[in-house]
Amino acid sequence: MFITFEGLDGSGKTTQVHLLAARLEAEGAEIVITREPGGTPLGEEIRDLVLHGGDMAPWAEAALYAASRAQHVEELIRPALARGATVLCDRYVDSSVAYQGIARGLGLERVLELNLAAVGGLMPDRTILIDIESGRAVARMSEDRDRIEREDDGFHGRAADGYRQLAARFPERYVTVDGTVAPELIAEEIYGAIRRNP
Amino acid sequence: MFITFEGLDGSGKTTQVHLLAARLEAEGAEIVITREPGGTPLGEEIRDLVLHGGDMAPWAEAALYAASRAQHVEELIRPALARGATVLCDRYVDSSVAYQGIARGLGLERVLELNLAAVGGLMPDRTILIDIESGRAVARMSEDRDRIEREDDGFHGRAADGYRQLAARFPERYVTVDGTVAPELIAEEIYGAIRRNP
Repeated sequence: MFITFEGLDGSGKTTQVHLLAARLEAEGAEIVITREPGGTPLGEEIRDLVLHGGDMAPWAEAALYAASRAQHVEELIRPALARGATVLCDRYVDSSVAYQGIARGLGLERVLELNLAAVGGLMPDRTILIDIESGRAVARMSEDRDRIEREDDGFHGRAADGYRQLAARFPERYVTVDGTVAPELIAEEIYGAIRRNP
Repeated sequence: MFITFEGLDGSGKTTQVHLLAARLEAEGAEIVITREPGGTPLGEEIRDLVLHGGDMAPWAEAALYAASRAQHVEELIRPALARGATVLCDRYVDSSVAYQGIARGLGLERVLELNLAAVGGLMPDRTILIDIESGRAVARMSEDRDRIEREDDGFHGRAADGYRQLAARFPERYVTVDGTVAPELIAEEIYGAIRRNP
């Protein structure tokens, strides 16, 4: 099973990845936790360029994320799924659609298409969207912000809206949870959703 | 005017870029010489990953080239063209179509589409294809080969064939010259073609 976690920086995604992993692992499943951009040596080099480099053209940014993702799928995600592991991935294709496609204005369809090519059509079985109002997410981000986190509130608001568009378009795989309640309650809701519809 | 040079490594492209630049410069034109992957600080970092890094997924490679190109167009090529300079670029979109689209088998249309998005539709006025049989090009490559140059003869042969497909598809901008004759003769032919159809 391939489960992706999406939402704004500061939404609490990473915490939820680990809480779900712990629970599924306790049931005996092999769990692979990974993240984007990154997840492979090449991907981590690209992560460094895209998050900690200077200004870049919007399509350069989108293509770098897609490159990291193509490598991630071929080197790590497909092999893990092939041996029966459950893969929990912190950000995936939908992040690019929300951030580069919607927030940067490159277009939902074009960014989705680029990414579908890059991943050979591999999409998650479930996507957990931790929904949170952008002002609240920004307030929760650490002081030491990366290039994307340093964008203004309008940018993060458009990304949040992009996620809602994706959830409406792909209801069969999306599980949207309220990111403003206690982490344990969110974890319970996510676990319940995965168990009801494995 | 935007002129790109295409052909296999070892075809003599780089020499011809400089010979044409010298001639046009002598006529008083502002000439900008650049290359791909690279051409900008971000592009050179990507060049290093893609040419001197380890194995990578074919779509990771294609997306890295597109990222370098998007930055190159926004940061260097468009501004140079806007101020009236003539830009001579050693490799551009067609390299990705020939190498990743045809030789790696990702598909001409999909790689072209990705790249047209990345460059915002900016295509060259003229493309000089220095045509050379792949065995001959491989024999001319330096000993210290990069990741692409290390591919086998079949790969380079498919790229050469990809270029011929592109020349047939875009006859209005393609000028194909025989790469096996003396460099001065090739230079003369290229200059003549540019002057006849500026």
